[in-house]
Amino acid sequence: MHGVIAGRDPSLRVIDVTHGIRPQNVLSGAYALADAVAAFPAGTIFVGVVDPGVGTSRRAVAAEIGDWRFVGPDNGLLTLLLERYPLGLTVELTNDTFHRLPRSTTFHGRDIFAPVAAAWATTSPITDFGPIITDPLIRLECAIPTREQNGPQILVRGTVLDADHFGNLRTNIRKDDLMVPEVPASAIVALEGDIVGSISTCYSDAADGSVLALFGSNDRLEIAVSNGSAATRFPRARAVVVTFTTA
Amino acid sequence: MHGVIAGRDPSLRVIDVTHGIRPQNVLSGAYALADAVAAFPAGTIFVGVVDPGVGTSRRAVAAEIGDWRFVGPDNGLLTLLLERYPLGLTVELTNDTFHRLPRSTTFHGRDIFAPVAAAWATTSPITDFGPIITDPLIRLECAIPTREQNGPQILVRGTVLDADHFGNLRTNIRKDDLMVPEVPASAIVALEGDIVGSISTCYSDAADGSVLALFGSNDRLEIAVSNGSAATRFPRARAVVVTFTTA
Amino acid sequence: MHGVIAGRDPSLRVIDVTHGIRPQNVLSGAYALADAVAAFPAGTIFVGVVDPGVGTSRRAVAAEIGDWRFVGPDNGLLTLLLERYPLGLTVELTNDTFHRLPRSTTFHGRDIFAPVAAAWATTSPITDFGPIITDPLIRLECAIPTREQNGPQILVRGTVLDADHFGNLRTNIRKDDLMVPEVPASAIVALEGDIVGSISTCYSDAADGSVLALFGSNDRLEIAVSNGSAATRFPRARAVVVTFTTA
Repeated sequence: MHGVIAGRDPSLRVIDVTHGIRPQNVLSGAYALADAVAAFPAGTIFVGVVDPGVGTSRRAVAAEIGDWRFVGPDNGLLTLLLERYPLGLTVELTNDTFHRLPRSTTFHGRDIFAPVAAAWATTSPITDFGPIITDPLIRLECAIPTREQNGPQILVRGTVLDADHFGNLRTNIRKDDLMVPEVPASAIVALEGDIVGSISTCYSDAADGSVLALFGSNDRLEIAVSNGSAATRFPRARAVVVTFTTA
Repeated sequence: MHGVIAGRDPSLRVIDVTHGIRPQNVLSGAYALADAVAAFPAGTIFVGVVDPGVGTSRRAVAAEIGDWRFVGPDNGLLTLLLERYPLGLTVELTNDTFHRLPRSTTFHGRDIFAPVAAAWATTSPITDFGPIITDPLIRLECAIPTREQNGPQILVRGTVLDADHFGNLRTNIRKDDLMVPEVPASAIVALEGDIVGSISTCYSDAADGSVLALFGSNDRLEIAVSNGSAATRFPRARAVVVTFTTA
Repeated sequence: MHGVIAGRDPSLRVIDVTHGIRPQNVLSGAYALADAVAAFPAGTIFVGVVDPGVGTSRRAVAAEIGDWRFVGPDNGLLTLLLERYPLGLTVELTNDTFHRLPRSTTFHGRDIFAPVAAAWATTSPITDFGPIITDPLIRLECAIPTREQNGPQILVRGTVLDADHFGNLRTNIRKDDLMVPEVPASAIVALEGDIVGSISTCYSDAADGSVLALFGSNDRLEIAVSNGSAATRFPRARAVVVTFTTA
C-alpha cells in the first residue's frame, strides 16, 4: 500500500496508525480508528483495512466524516466514527479506472483503497470514485455500551474489544459510560456472567493469579490477571457488565 | 538506518516494508522482497538485511534488477527477484568512502547498506560503490517449487517459508505451481513425508486440533492446525509435497 | 503523536526508532535512546515516552544534549545520554500554550511531548516552553556497569536490560567494560549469584536447555538458554556479574 501511494506521488505523507488489530476484529479496529482521528489535522485521509470480508459482496466506500476523509470496506469499521461525527458525502468505489489492475481478490488495501486514497489526496474529488450512496453504512451491533437503571441499581453492559500484549482484556466501557462523577466503591464487574469483583485502582492490588478489573489507558475498563494473562484464562469471554447502586 | 539516510538527505522518503522476517530466514525474506517490488515505482531502492552472515566473507552488493534497485548482502536474498526479473549492472560495495566509518562487524545495515542506498538515491551512480561483478549472485537452493509427472501422477515439491502469527505454516507453493485450472479434489498434501490430507477451502473445515492444508493469502499453500498452531506442532518441518492425478 | 506533529507542519519528518520497549522498563529505553542518537544528524529532536510515571509529579522536560535535542519525562530516560554527552540548556515544559488541551492524564506523549517537539522543530526556541532547570535531571541507579579489582581478581557488575524476541536476556555489560584486549578464557558469568559458566563464542556451543553467556549484538553480554528462553527460565533475574583474573 505504501508503494502504490508513493507511485502516485512520492511526496504524499503516509503515517501507520496501527498494524496491531487482529484479523477479523473489526470492532477493535473501529475503536482504534475513532480514538485516533481527533489528533490528526482536518482533511486527513484514513485508510482502514480490517477486512475479513474481502472477496465477498461487502461494498468498498469513500466517505467524509466530521473533518476527515475515509477509504475502506463498508463492514462496520466506521461504526464508532458515525456515532461521534456527522457523515457527509459517501460513494461506492466502483470506478475501476482508479484501481490497480488486475485487482486481486485478497488484497483490496493495495489494489483499491490505497490508489483511491492517493488520488483523493492529490487531484480527484470523491465523486470521481463511484456513485453516491444514500442508504446507511453498516454499523456493528453491540458496539456501544448500554446503561439501564432498575430502581437504585445501574447496569452498564459492554464488550471485550481485544487484549493488550500483557494479556489484559480491554473493553469498550469507559468511566464516562457509568455517568457518575466517581467510580462507585460498590461497583461490581462480571465477565460472561461470572463475578470478577470490584474495581481496583492499580495492577498491583491483587495476589498473583487473581482476576481484577480496573480502568486503564484511555480510561477504558480492563480485565487483568495479576502477573498472568486474562486473554489466556478467558479466551472466548466477550460480555462485560458493571453493576452499581446510586447513592 | 533511518538516521543515516536522514543525515544524507532529510527529504529522502523511507518506507519500512517489513521488520517481521525472522533472523536467519533468508528464504522468507527473499519471497517478501520479490512479492513487494511490483507495487513500488520504478527506480525504488530496496535495502534488505536478513543477514545471518554479517561479519563473514559474503559480499555486500548493489544491483539493478527489473525496474528497481537493490542494496544488501549477496546471500541469496535476491533469489526470487533474479528468478522473475532481468539482472542489470551489479557491483560489490568495496569503496568505503561511501560507508559509515568505523564500520561495525555486526550492523552492516547501518554502516554499509543505508549510506550506499542514500548516496545512490541522491547523486552517485552505481559504479561509484565498487567494481562491477560478473560472476553469478548467490541463489538459494530449493527456493522454487518443482513439478514432476509420473504417468498420470503429478508431484509438486515445495518448502515451508515461515509461520504467520497464528502459527500457520506458509509454503512457497502457489496455486499456479500446480498448473491446473482448478485445485483437483484428489490433491493430497504431505509434510515431511506424513500425509496431512486433502486441500480444504477454509480454516473452519476441520475439528479442533486436526491438521489441514489450504490456499491462503497470496494464494500460497498453508498448513494449519484448527484452533491451534502448526508452527508449534511441527517446528522443524520444511518439505511439503502436493500429489494429484490428472484427469 | 504522529497526527499532532503532522497537524503542526505536515512536512516534518518523523522516524519511529522503536516501539519495542516494554512499559515500565525505563532503563531499557535509556539504552535504546543512547545507542541510537549517534546515527542521526545533529539537531534531530528525540521524543522518548517510556513513562510509567505519567500522571505523577515527575517533570516534563526539553533538553539539549550533545548535538541533539530531547523531549520527554524527567524519569531517568536520559541517564545514558547524560553519561556520554554534555548537557546544554534544559527547561521544564510548563508553558501550556504549547500543549494540546485539554491535556489527558495518561497520554503526555500526544498532549505535551509531541506538540512541544513540533514547535521546537519549526519556530520556537527551547526557552519558550518553560523555565530553565538548573538542578540535576533524574539518573537511574545501577545503570552503568561497575568494575572492581581485588588483587588479581576483577568483578564487573551489571544488570539485565530486557529480553529479545528469542528470550535471550540482554545486559548492560559490553566487552569494553571488561577493560581487557580480549575476553579472558577464565571469565565466569553469574546471574543473581548463580554461576552460568564461561563465555561462549556462539549460540550453538551448548546442549539443548543449557544456559550460556555470550557477547551478542552491539557487543552486549547476553544470557541465553540453548533452544529455549532465558526470559522464561529467569523471569526476575537482574544482577549479572562477570569475574576474571588478570594475567
